[in-house]
Amino acid sequence: MTKPIDALRSDLAGSGPPLFFPDPEVPAVFNFDQGLAAPETFPRDDLTRLAKLVLQRDGADVLDYFDPDTGYEELVFGYKGLREQIAQRIARQQGVDVGPRGVILTSGSVQGIALAINGYVNKGDIVVVEAASFPYALRFMDMAGADLRTVPVDDSGMDVDALEALLAIEGDRVKMVYTIPTFQTPTATEMPVARRRKLLDLARQHSFVIVEDNVYGDLRFAGEDLPTLMSMDDTGLVIQCGSFSKIVAPALRLGWIAGQPEAIAALAAVRQDLGVGQWLARVMTEYMAEGLLEPHLVDANKVYKAKAETAARALREHCGDYVRFREPQGSFYLWVEIDERIDWGTAARMAEREGIFFRPGERFMNDTGGRQFLRLAYSHVSEDVIREGLETLGGILRQCVRVAA
Amino acid sequence: MTKPIDALRSDLAGSGPPLFFPDPEVPAVFNFDQGLAAPETFPRDDLTRLAKLVLQRDGADVLDYFDPDTGYEELVFGYKGLREQIAQRIARQQGVDVGPRGVILTSGSVQGIALAINGYVNKGDIVVVEAASFPYALRFMDMAGADLRTVPVDDSGMDVDALEALLAIEGDRVKMVYTIPTFQTPTATEMPVARRRKLLDLARQHSFVIVEDNVYGDLRFAGEDLPTLMSMDDTGLVIQCGSFSKIVAPALRLGWIAGQPEAIAALAAVRQDLGVGQWLARVMTEYMAEGLLEPHLVDANKVYKAKAETAARALREHCGDYVRFREPQGSFYLWVEIDERIDWGTAARMAEREGIFFRPGERFMNDTGGRQFLRLAYSHVSEDVIREGLETLGGILRQCVRVAA
Repeated sequence: MTKPIDALRSDLAGSGPPLFFPDPEVPAVFNFDQGLAAPETFPRDDLTRLAKLVLQRDGADVLDYFDPDTGYEELVFGYKGLREQIAQRIARQQGVDVGPRGVILTSGSVQGIALAINGYVNKGDIVVVEAASFPYALRFMDMAGADLRTVPVDDSGMDVDALEALLAIEGDRVKMVYTIPTFQTPTATEMPVARRRKLLDLARQHSFVIVEDNVYGDLRFAGEDLPTLMSMDDTGLVIQCGSFSKIVAPALRLGWIAGQPEAIAALAAVRQDLGVGQWLARVMTEYMAEGLLEPHLVDANKVYKAKAETAARALREHCGDYVRFREPQGSFYLWVEIDERIDWGTAARMAEREGIFFRPGERFMNDTGGRQFLRLAYSHVSEDVIREGLETLGGILRQCVRVAA
Repeated sequence: MTKPIDALRSDLAGSGPPLFFPDPEVPAVFNFDQGLAAPETFPRDDLTRLAKLVLQRDGADVLDYFDPDTGYEELVFGYKGLREQIAQRIARQQGVDVGPRGVILTSGSVQGIALAINGYVNKGDIVVVEAASFPYALRFMDMAGADLRTVPVDDSGMDVDALEALLAIEGDRVKMVYTIPTFQTPTATEMPVARRRKLLDLARQHSFVIVEDNVYGDLRFAGEDLPTLMSMDDTGLVIQCGSFSKIVAPALRLGWIAGQPEAIAALAAVRQDLGVGQWLARVMTEYMAEGLLEPHLVDANKVYKAKAETAARALREHCGDYVRFREPQGSFYLWVEIDERIDWGTAARMAEREGIFFRPGERFMNDTGGRQFLRLAYSHVSEDVIREGLETLGGILRQCVRVAA
């Protein structure tokens, strides 16, 4: 008898959900779930203008697989002009010259992270992540058969001493450390310079690859820039990913991963598509060449600052007795700890019925340790929605205070 | 001592070339290497018009990850509107209703093939391909750890009797058969209906997935359409890929893979990016909704017909004594067998020095069997280049006739 096709699935397909995040069953009224750029910041006029401009100026090449002057390289690395712009920006901001062969363009940073994992991680290799981390990265490590280990996160990001203790036991079995040092998701923490230095020292001693997820690095609206791991590195072991999805527009499907060319070559070998599209890559190239990106970021960060302040104010006002959180310095999120006095299971269900969505803390963690967290994305919703949503949440929390038995 | 990062590469990265096709060292004068759509067919005006139209009409949603009305599903499956258009076209042309959850949008058909392999093939599973086949598919099967088996190709495509003999020995170890039944690359053959029917019978008996690569199916300029495997299937075991890269423009990075929803679900689970971009997906949706695709294909196929005839004529005129090939009925290629009297090793090197590029036959094959082949892409070059290039090739062949010892 013929087997149905779903009996033939690979182990890889069987190991994951068909949709990474299932759609909720009730409509979102207050949607704090998704880490999305604010639609009002998308540079719509510039993007349509440049889409037309590059096609009129450069002709049919814009719609082809690659620029004939650059050749097949672009099927893997992507449009060279954009790689040059990104490499120059990295040199300007981080003092590191990786050149165009040190940049691979990706379909958002998520694909870059997947390429890094597939390029370096064999089944059984230890990969270390922060105890709460980016779910897609965790999934791709699992798909690669990594032996996934977590180290705690405190107010200063990854606990690098805990990593050192792990390395003392496991040594060379640790192949990769994945970290989000600036505006860590979901905790919104920043790793101080001393920890960054120590992390690099450990990489030097134990020869592991550091994947520095810098996707939020440009989204600072308060505090001082910290040097990136890549800017401090002299080992060649750091590769850094970024994306235009968070800072310009997701539908460009343009991210990048950068490092020394010999680091990036491994990623090129495992790519399973024919690179990013020429058209939108040339649009972004022109956008950067015209000097539009940096002023755009200034404007966008004003939007996020206002929303972050509104969210923090509303949380304090409406939920203040029952929540703890850090005042955000950048990025899209508040990481909110719910007081133990609240019956959070009940409250979360009530919130969902009201159409208040957030990402539950356990989505980021292997082990919740009994604590009660949520990640609240304020970036893409209006300030009215933020205020009303958090007022409603506050009402729910008050209804769910546990009564001593 | 710190290890250099390239010592840390995964086996997967170590197993493949950094660039799938290295760039040639001399400039291409006559470039018959790449399977590219003709740039003069790219609908530039419509694409720029529609890029502007969808953004003005639908607003910032066009630049976001997904349509809020459809939701997270689009991070995996892609823009629903385009999936609906593709599903309707499949229903119209092939009589099969797969619906929007039976279509997953991909970054070209290459990514679709990779997803199919990763979704169904475990390490050690047997995957069967035609003895000369699409190099990227072979590479992705290798990356999945497939036990790759080839069956011969004759003038009627895959030798399905040889497949039957293989199945008699290996039975259920055969997980997948990858075939290009219409305008097989590189051989340009078509599998007749009787073979198609037998292939489906074998799938029914032995429960293997058929990946029907239909990327050239719309590029017919002579002969009669044959029913696709998917149109003849009642097992649910057929998944079919296609792409706008060959028929509209590669820089859209839009392809698809279609089948019954339960077949496609496995592919969704192994995706390692956040779907295709909304903007260009909506551009293509509108392009199809306006009824522009079918007349565009009529026009494009006229271009390919003229080039194919020019190439065939030039080959007969200039190389006629030393080459054998089939008159093409569609697609972009001639599969040319070089007579044994020619010292083809020497001739190929001389051709390269003249800047005549083609894809050597061995690039498609595990085993050349001592024969001398090349795949000649005529699609993207001018008729003048075709004529001059093949005249030059003819001169080289005459210089390389072996003299009896």
